Amino acid sequence: MAGHGADLTEETQYMIDRNAGKEAANVDSPSNAKEMRAVVLAGFGGLNKLRVTKKAMPEPQDGEVKIRVKACGLNFLDLMVRQGNIDNPPKTPLVPGFECCGIVESVAENTQGFEIGDRVMAFLNYNAWAEVVCTPVDFVYKMPDDMTFTEAAAFSLNFVAAYMMLFEVASLREGMSVLVHSAGGAVGQAVAQLCSTVPKVTVFGVASCFKHTSIKDSVTHLFDRNTDYIQEVKKISPDGVDIVLDCLCGENTGKSLSLLKPLGTYILYGASNTVTGETKSFFSFAKSWWQVEKVNPIKLYEENKVIAGFSLLNLLFKQGGRSLVKSAMDKLLSLYEQKKIRPVVDSLWALEEVKEAMQRIHDRGNIGKLILDVEKSPTPLMANDSTETSEAGEEEEEPEGDNDSKERMPFIH
Amino acid sequence: MAGHGADLTEETQYMIDRNAGKEAANVDSPSNAKEMRAVVLAGFGGLNKLRVTKKAMPEPQDGEVKIRVKACGLNFLDLMVRQGNIDNPPKTPLVPGFECCGIVESVAENTQGFEIGDRVMAFLNYNAWAEVVCTPVDFVYKMPDDMTFTEAAAFSLNFVAAYMMLFEVASLREGMSVLVHSAGGAVGQAVAQLCSTVPKVTVFGVASCFKHTSIKDSVTHLFDRNTDYIQEVKKISPDGVDIVLDCLCGENTGKSLSLLKPLGTYILYGASNTVTGETKSFFSFAKSWWQVEKVNPIKLYEENKVIAGFSLLNLLFKQGGRSLVKSAMDKLLSLYEQKKIRPVVDSLWALEEVKEAMQRIHDRGNIGKLILDVEKSPTPLMANDSTETSEAGEEEEEPEGDNDSKERMPFIH
Repeated sequence: MAGHGADLTEETQYMIDRNAGKEAANVDSPSNAKEMRAVVLAGFGGLNKLRVTKKAMPEPQDGEVKIRVKACGLNFLDLMVRQGNIDNPPKTPLVPGFECCGIVESVAENTQGFEIGDRVMAFLNYNAWAEVVCTPVDFVYKMPDDMTFTEAAAFSLNFVAAYMMLFEVASLREGMSVLVHSAGGAVGQAVAQLCSTVPKVTVFGVASCFKHTSIKDSVTHLFDRNTDYIQEVKKISPDGVDIVLDCLCGENTGKSLSLLKPLGTYILYGASNTVTGETKSFFSFAKSWWQVEKVNPIKLYEENKVIAGFSLLNLLFKQGGRSLVKSAMDKLLSLYEQKKIRPVVDSLWALEEVKEAMQRIHDRGNIGKLILDVEKSPTPLMANDSTETSEAGEEEEEPEGDNDSKERMPFIH
Repeated sequence: MAGHGADLTEETQYMIDRNAGKEAANVDSPSNAKEMRAVVLAGFGGLNKLRVTKKAMPEPQDGEVKIRVKACGLNFLDLMVRQGNIDNPPKTPLVPGFECCGIVESVAENTQGFEIGDRVMAFLNYNAWAEVVCTPVDFVYKMPDDMTFTEAAAFSLNFVAAYMMLFEVASLREGMSVLVHSAGGAVGQAVAQLCSTVPKVTVFGVASCFKHTSIKDSVTHLFDRNTDYIQEVKKISPDGVDIVLDCLCGENTGKSLSLLKPLGTYILYGASNTVTGETKSFFSFAKSWWQVEKVNPIKLYEENKVIAGFSLLNLLFKQGGRSLVKSAMDKLLSLYEQKKIRPVVDSLWALEEVKEAMQRIHDRGNIGKLILDVEKSPTPLMANDSTETSEAGEEEEEPEGDNDSKERMPFIH
């Protein structure tokens, strides 16, 4: 049995890595290393709580694979985690990140279907932003041959969330209409693409004005977030819309409910309005909970409306939804292979650039997905004195010895 | 063109009526009568507000058909109307009733597709409990040849509501589970039958103990309303259920939400718990509105749950949902013709027996549908002194000159 599976020599494993991963040429951490680099959140708070440090190399437990990470997805939720602005926040220090992709480097027992060298994408319950991760195979999916690691890191969370909201929670069908807040974000762009796979679906997008040129072709109608978009939508569709997807919460909930057609569905899938500054000094999760307008079921009865919440990570990691997610992923990979969907990538960042990347998503500057590219070198610092964040200083900032106060220039994809 | 459509002589019309309607032999009101009998609600309140009187014969307006009514459906909502315990109650006096069936007696302009003699069922926005009704053809559906008028009067509202909740609001699919409160009621029985048209659906029913023998074969598991059925369901299905259908409201809302699986849907389609006595002296609609527990959208987000309301009558008459309803009706008539569904009828009552019928539904004594049979004679009074209602006397009772204080024996189907 020599030469098969886990018995391969390290040199052979390394060769498989090089051959299987199109972007694997720069691998500089052989699998016998005792340490790996990871982004660490030292405590809840501002950007200064993040740093890249060495951590002990993880090893896969029963049912887990060990993945040499190529790229990770950055989501708005990661900002809320950094602030501790979530329900039941975990203990710090922690390694953030909920999704990554890479190459299987070793497999433990009970990992049937996965082999060393497999190109995979994975969901993690934290710990994704590292050079190496170990995770149960239930949360790991093989990448199509023609999918790049950059695409894979932009694919999992946003497309699965968009798919399950449109087709599992609501029932998107021919001729329906969808309003998506944050149309320029990664979920918004995934929603727009998935809507285009169903005949005659009208997509109303809401986005900041500066994104309109870039995304106008992805939706049917586009509105400026700062206008009275409810009235604008009603001018075009007086009866309202069938589905509203809202990641903002707050006052948008009531407005969006008023825009629903009878039997229409409002889905809340995030609460980014609870993040108003770099830290949670004013709006905390507990406060936002109480400030959100609650819904009377009798009102839903009278108006024939549906209100839903969707959290993919809770579904996966708290509520045993792995088979539902696997089923959605299978359908999405089929759509990808038919070239009907393709993730939109905003920019790639080195692990050391995570603060700048977070600031970009905080400022809603992105169009599509922000990626942490594990093999990317930090862009050389520019010789200017601009501060790293536009809203820093709301909370105590610890003086740091590194170059955090210098702006880095990201690679815009 | 003599002899066609509206130009037929009255005598010919009468013959068509006799020939087309299998149960039309007893027609005693020729179509040239100036008056007809109807149930009238003189004002909101107790059973004593109802009486049968003569009303002017209605004539169809543009787009309407005139229907010689054979039978009408009685629903719990009719009790709430009687009490004025609904949002924006109409002015009294009024003729109650939202559904009936019968034979088309004349047609106005723009009623393509309908002819004199057609056997039809219809939704009405009040005014159904009469010997003759006129209504727009948008709300009229032809009856299958082998459907009796009794079945037709039990079909429309309950099956359309059950169908739209299961398949439009939720998405009932193979292998799912459904909890239905009031499993012995007409909607409950329709839900059970429709669930049996989908493979491997588990139906949990909640009903009063005395109905269990009669309905136990219609559901998978049956629980007594007075037990802790939430715990009983969790013993059988620890993960909970996919769909909960609730016509009670009140404390059942929170309980039912706790029983939902991730991505599960709770649908409120009535608020019969707001009716606690014969009159609304204590629980009014406005009070029940505020006493219902409101739902925080962020909780739905964390728990991945869906909450919906469904009111078929609002959908039809306030929200322009006639084409959605037509589509559901078409599918239901096909299921009926395939003999996959068949309405369960509890009992037939003469118009003059509407009070006893209402008391029976108030006491949750029925299994399936209560029908007002327009051609039925009131059952001879029994010679005893029992009062007509079990909860009368909460409000002022006007002395009446008729025999209301004598019990009538209904015809149990």
